[in-house]
Amino acid sequence: MRWCRFQRSDGPRYGLIDGDGVCPVDGSPFGDFWPRAERLPLESVHFLPPVVPPTFFCVGLNYASHIQHARERGMAAAVIPERPEIGYRANSALVGHGTPVVRPADCTGRFEAEGELVAVIGRRVRQCSRQEAVDAVFGWTIGNDVSARAWQKSDRTLWRAKNSDTFKPMGPWIETDIDPMTSRTIIDLDGVPAAEFATGDMIFDPFDYICEISRYITLVPGDVLWMGTETVVEMEPGKTLSVTITGIGTLSNPVEIEASVTTAEEQL
Amino acid sequence: MRWCRFQRSDGPRYGLIDGDGVCPVDGSPFGDFWPRAERLPLESVHFLPPVVPPTFFCVGLNYASHIQHARERGMAAAVIPERPEIGYRANSALVGHGTPVVRPADCTGRFEAEGELVAVIGRRVRQCSRQEAVDAVFGWTIGNDVSARAWQKSDRTLWRAKNSDTFKPMGPWIETDIDPMTSRTIIDLDGVPAAEFATGDMIFDPFDYICEISRYITLVPGDVLWMGTETVVEMEPGKTLSVTITGIGTLSNPVEIEASVTTAEEQL
Repeated sequence: MRWCRFQRSDGPRYGLIDGDGVCPVDGSPFGDFWPRAERLPLESVHFLPPVVPPTFFCVGLNYASHIQHARERGMAAAVIPERPEIGYRANSALVGHGTPVVRPADCTGRFEAEGELVAVIGRRVRQCSRQEAVDAVFGWTIGNDVSARAWQKSDRTLWRAKNSDTFKPMGPWIETDIDPMTSRTIIDLDGVPAAEFATGDMIFDPFDYICEISRYITLVPGDVLWMGTETVVEMEPGKTLSVTITGIGTLSNPVEIEASVTTAEEQL
Repeated sequence: MRWCRFQRSDGPRYGLIDGDGVCPVDGSPFGDFWPRAERLPLESVHFLPPVVPPTFFCVGLNYASHIQHARERGMAAAVIPERPEIGYRANSALVGHGTPVVRPADCTGRFEAEGELVAVIGRRVRQCSRQEAVDAVFGWTIGNDVSARAWQKSDRTLWRAKNSDTFKPMGPWIETDIDPMTSRTIIDLDGVPAAEFATGDMIFDPFDYICEISRYITLVPGDVLWMGTETVVEMEPGKTLSVTITGIGTLSNPVEIEASVTTAEEQL
């Protein structure tokens, strides 16, 4: 099944995708739900992030060549991890498929896309086995861990570098019937291929992470794990950045520059 | 007004505190609400975190003497910040007033409480003025940013050190009619005073943070900002750790040790 979430006049709603149409659903994929006797053309739908996670987990370094690249760019902490250690991102930065990613007016330096597989949790798990971790995944979607590199170096945390408004596109939908470990991740700008890698070529896979997280943290339905990227791609304003994971779909977002910035002084 | 959130047989519910009683409320303090013709004794209520924030912001270093203490303990990055830089914590770690804080079985080293003022956002703000930041605060509560120091040093992120299950007590309620900048923060163990400081003795105050965050990030109703601590206190298992902020109330949580741990190997 393919679950999406979209904006209607009465608020956000889940939907089931059927070919080129969307069937609106009452309820949620993580609880009871009732499909409506209605069908909307797929191209008419304003996509939202397919889930707003209770907790938003994100892997930083999970592909060997990405770690090497980061180290070459001066990130001394970029070494092959010995354990699956997770980090966090902010829900406030989430946008859906089709929504512009906006580079803040005062954001200079490299502004890069990181196309990532996303695991969506469907069951409550704590101290789980690997099989329970496999069973805990509801489905898979795509994330773009947009990163402003100058802020990543200058700031004490990743608060601006990775969590400014619109920096976390996720979607277009959740695919429940696929093994993404055999997929390919393809990143393109305005349709021109920019990077491609084997999605499953990870140091630790999603189930390794779920087992390790669950030793200390209860995972609940709707939580997401972003699984890291291999290759970064510069986000060129005026173009559309797309991340395709075969078997799931394509997450596309136009790239824009914020028209103007209000300085702290002007605000006083 | 004092808003709490508590567990009932049909799920979580907001309530208004009136002396030694709680009036259950339909709806939410962040939208429409309707008090019920009902009153529960305060001591009968199972408190939940007073809000589950859309985004959970947390200040790391915001009191000069805490920074000095951290540096003396070997945290080289502990320098007086020049700007209000925010970090994040995980909703999965939140518990309410009265719920035990559980130290994981394999967690060794110092296990410390950080008693903190918490600002609860009531309005959507982006690129706001200082006055808009003041107006954006719905009310104030108390947080304990429980920290496992060995993990804080050994791990690449704060995922276990500050975000293991039960590590983020928040409550007991939200107080809407107070200026906490003139309050005192008092931390005690089983009623024995362990630390006390001026709550408002911060490097950057909550409104500085709201203005700065809102330059890049939209704050929405229910978001919380934990404002950092001055003095850390060891959490002794078997005792109850309480954080009082005058004018708000007291957040108390018993400290326990996890009975046993399932190792990753045993899980396979």
